[in-house]
Amino acid sequence: MSPVLTGVYAPIGTPFVKEEVAYDKLAANMEKYAASKLSGYLAIGTNGECVSLSETERAKVLETIVAGKAPQQKVLAGANAESTKLTIEQCTMVASLGADYASVITPCYFKKKLNDDAMIKYYLDVADGSPIPIACYNAPGFTGMTISTTTLKAIASHENIIGIKDTSPGMIGSYLRTTADLDFDVFSGTANTLFPAMMMGATGGIVSLANAFPDVCAKLYEFCIADDLERARELHMVLGKLNSGVSGSYGVAGVKYATEVAGFHGGDPRLPLLPITDSDKDSIKRAIEAIDLSPYL
Amino acid sequence: MSPVLTGVYAPIGTPFVKEEVAYDKLAANMEKYAASKLSGYLAIGTNGECVSLSETERAKVLETIVAGKAPQQKVLAGANAESTKLTIEQCTMVASLGADYASVITPCYFKKKLNDDAMIKYYLDVADGSPIPIACYNAPGFTGMTISTTTLKAIASHENIIGIKDTSPGMIGSYLRTTADLDFDVFSGTANTLFPAMMMGATGGIVSLANAFPDVCAKLYEFCIADDLERARELHMVLGKLNSGVSGSYGVAGVKYATEVAGFHGGDPRLPLLPITDSDKDSIKRAIEAIDLSPYL
Amino acid sequence: MSPVLTGVYAPIGTPFVKEEVAYDKLAANMEKYAASKLSGYLAIGTNGECVSLSETERAKVLETIVAGKAPQQKVLAGANAESTKLTIEQCTMVASLGADYASVITPCYFKKKLNDDAMIKYYLDVADGSPIPIACYNAPGFTGMTISTTTLKAIASHENIIGIKDTSPGMIGSYLRTTADLDFDVFSGTANTLFPAMMMGATGGIVSLANAFPDVCAKLYEFCIADDLERARELHMVLGKLNSGVSGSYGVAGVKYATEVAGFHGGDPRLPLLPITDSDKDSIKRAIEAIDLSPYL
Amino acid sequence: MSPVLTGVYAPIGTPFVKEEVAYDKLAANMEKYAASKLSGYLAIGTNGECVSLSETERAKVLETIVAGKAPQQKVLAGANAESTKLTIEQCTMVASLGADYASVITPCYFKKKLNDDAMIKYYLDVADGSPIPIACYNAPGFTGMTISTTTLKAIASHENIIGIKDTSPGMIGSYLRTTADLDFDVFSGTANTLFPAMMMGATGGIVSLANAFPDVCAKLYEFCIADDLERARELHMVLGKLNSGVSGSYGVAGVKYATEVAGFHGGDPRLPLLPITDSDKDSIKRAIEAIDLSPYL
Repeated sequence: MSPVLTGVYAPIGTPFVKEEVAYDKLAANMEKYAASKLSGYLAIGTNGECVSLSETERAKVLETIVAGKAPQQKVLAGANAESTKLTIEQCTMVASLGADYASVITPCYFKKKLNDDAMIKYYLDVADGSPIPIACYNAPGFTGMTISTTTLKAIASHENIIGIKDTSPGMIGSYLRTTADLDFDVFSGTANTLFPAMMMGATGGIVSLANAFPDVCAKLYEFCIADDLERARELHMVLGKLNSGVSGSYGVAGVKYATEVAGFHGGDPRLPLLPITDSDKDSIKRAIEAIDLSPYL
Repeated sequence: MSPVLTGVYAPIGTPFVKEEVAYDKLAANMEKYAASKLSGYLAIGTNGECVSLSETERAKVLETIVAGKAPQQKVLAGANAESTKLTIEQCTMVASLGADYASVITPCYFKKKLNDDAMIKYYLDVADGSPIPIACYNAPGFTGMTISTTTLKAIASHENIIGIKDTSPGMIGSYLRTTADLDFDVFSGTANTLFPAMMMGATGGIVSLANAFPDVCAKLYEFCIADDLERARELHMVLGKLNSGVSGSYGVAGVKYATEVAGFHGGDPRLPLLPITDSDKDSIKRAIEAIDLSPYL
Repeated sequence: MSPVLTGVYAPIGTPFVKEEVAYDKLAANMEKYAASKLSGYLAIGTNGECVSLSETERAKVLETIVAGKAPQQKVLAGANAESTKLTIEQCTMVASLGADYASVITPCYFKKKLNDDAMIKYYLDVADGSPIPIACYNAPGFTGMTISTTTLKAIASHENIIGIKDTSPGMIGSYLRTTADLDFDVFSGTANTLFPAMMMGATGGIVSLANAFPDVCAKLYEFCIADDLERARELHMVLGKLNSGVSGSYGVAGVKYATEVAGFHGGDPRLPLLPITDSDKDSIKRAIEAIDLSPYL
Repeated sequence: MSPVLTGVYAPIGTPFVKEEVAYDKLAANMEKYAASKLSGYLAIGTNGECVSLSETERAKVLETIVAGKAPQQKVLAGANAESTKLTIEQCTMVASLGADYASVITPCYFKKKLNDDAMIKYYLDVADGSPIPIACYNAPGFTGMTISTTTLKAIASHENIIGIKDTSPGMIGSYLRTTADLDFDVFSGTANTLFPAMMMGATGGIVSLANAFPDVCAKLYEFCIADDLERARELHMVLGKLNSGVSGSYGVAGVKYATEVAGFHGGDPRLPLLPITDSDKDSIKRAIEAIDLSPYL
């Protein structure tokens, strides 16, 4: 079968004004994204600060994204919760609001007891209970948990699990090897690993830099699927430098400011994440200006 | 001023029947706890599996605990959320339901960006916004975050922050030194550290073993405040061995089963935490039976 | 300038018989390696169990490797020590015995105090004091230390530092970006990352699997420099599976047994590393037999 | 049987002048220590920067300490190596130079393969091979390894293993519980835990602060064995604050400078440890001057 998760997705940020969600600004951003080459969106994920939103806010953010996307673009929506029951409820909620797939991060609070047996049962139970297909989300930098290849091997054939998104520094190669013979998509979680991951068989990625530079990120995907090694390598280096200057050093707040520099609505993250300082803004602006993206537009 | 958080608190577990909260069983447990020597309760905390409960369930569990406690017993209620805004909402909610204090764990999802500046602002903002006094909760085994002494020093004098509960293996000594001259209570988070922590100045503790053996745990507190070194040491050793055989190896599920062995309603944790196996049950039962608690009743 | 570290190097293992180094068996292995397509050797490195050898044994192992290699093959020799002074002495020792380059791992005992300033001075001092060029070695799985890109940027232009070898799960992309414009070689430290690292600009790698299958590993390098994406990808997958079944699960002892299966002298590691069990041997043997390497010979 | 490791030991630092060991300064320090209330010394341990010394230097440092000590004082000497064979050789060496006991840290380079089985065999083999009794040394801050209670239980009855020294933040309580019924000594590794550890049954400690303030540290031990809770608590707080201002923030270099302030020979550590800055020196000096130790002399 053909892959399901393909191309470049942007993990849409949530604009705030004085700590309140600015749905109108989000809708304005979506209008531009809908005209881009993005294949889809990660809605209410890490960069959307989903963990900082109330249930009601999450729902309205997702609705705004679904309403604003182009018809051919897909929506993968975060369905984060610590218990199997609550996660299935989240999957059901995002499905009812129009998400195509649910992104299911590892629970992590009880990490010391969440061994392979627990994680396998968790993902199989959620996949059974979710009305839409799910993708696993491995994000040890946020959760302190890693989906093992043992777990992945045990769940990857479930018909309602379409793939895995990985933002760890080094698991993606193992995930690709583990699922090489299966109908299962491995998605890179950062600009830094998109190129090498695609060389090894990944089907695309969710790239925070795409919030600011959607078409350039989509271009890297195109070079990769065309096996245009030379230009892919070159753009990989360019995006890697850009990413170091933006997301690598400043996280969500940096991505939001870069998005602003690129002409979208960005703004500060919700507290406790601190607003980015003026000197950090300068640094991000300089990192962006130092790079000529015009050859890739 | 006198300390506010004193004595032994039990971190009340949530009984489930087929994945649903059994409020009646919780109420039955509370009837017995109300007759015990416990000074108070941690409601909807780690052992209450608060992260696995919905908003509605959390509220009803807290209501049940408040309704069932004895008049002199205090309720410290978990107010866990990842954003300042949501945490203040949680504090307001638990206050409205009768909690005396809110237990505020560190946010942790964005841990890489939650430096001292962010954590100081977080706790000061929450303390400003909470209608009831708050206690900080340091639990690196669950969050991957540690409240630094720099943060503690900067927030400990806020009049709405009464203390800190620590379940880390080794921070409590530093917390006690940092706040020695302040009107600030340091509370031990496990049976294992209650005795040495009290020797160094802690005012009591929240002890999961107290869910099963409330009076024996309260007795250790009594020995400590009486400076009865010999008997405190002895009971410390006894409880330490018991704790290793229960919570140390099996976590929340182990505590629940020990609670059951002791005559309360326990039951399985909510998924993804797996039910405890029969052989683990045997092991816990043997650990309990091997110890003669009668001298401490 | 052209790269210095190129091709595939094997990190030669040290055969022991009853805990004593079997130099004759090592020499016999070298005879075969000298006839292979290997570009060079890592002598007295991790797989050589250098940390388990005495000073005298290290010297004799290195001599044996230098004596046995083919003229065109290079020797990179481990120069591990915790102080700058001792590391320079090690570099001088390996130089005097014929090593071409010294591999200098991060010191790690005092890791809490070894910040960027300390590490920069360390590498510059060692580079100044070493009679032969040095390569940095980043191996957090063994040392608990990571060479930061800040450190790398500050030292990469030193004329006596030729490159870096990386066995971490995810730093190699950052190392390549940091040194892209410099005359500096980045070397992959495992079979798993050789292909993606070379796609991004690495000049080769040190691959424990090459102890058992030198020519097949060298073939992957050839495919990569020829930009033969299809065959490189395929062989990458093959070697990845093989590596998971050998080094990934069983470490040094697994590599040694695979080496034995492939017709070299392997044997048990020195204690405290335990000998590999019979069932682990079976598992490794099956992993090797399951893969047809003949198309790559 | 009576405990063997008792009282307060100082982990003697190694004075350097221009990167060379200053044996005369070490001898001069020993003259003063010999007149103090110290029960013994840790020679060539962490604070002695043993990992930065050559074999020859280690031997001469140990000889100097043995020659300078008072007759009733004991010498526990570091016997650090990564292989069982080399560790036994180190034990034999320190025994031949007059050490009473060998301090055997965990090997750590191959930490991923050093499971309980490997560690149990390691300590039993070393204990069998050592001509003098050994004490285990748990130091995860330096090694990234922790001696488990499973390992400890399996080795603690060996007649040539007298005890364990612990510098971890939180294992000492578990070690005391595990060995409570055995003829086995548990020694605290820092000033911060000496008091609570002794309350729980430890027999003394190795305290870096004792390099600067030997008699004051010995006094805390005296208060503890006298069960003089009030004065022990008070001095515990005093030493804790002092320790935070010295060793806690600045490590080995801080201890050396404090030693100098107290009238001994200190000096810079050997590289790669950086010399302490002038502002750090000021900070340490102020921390020392802020505390009145005269009531404890």
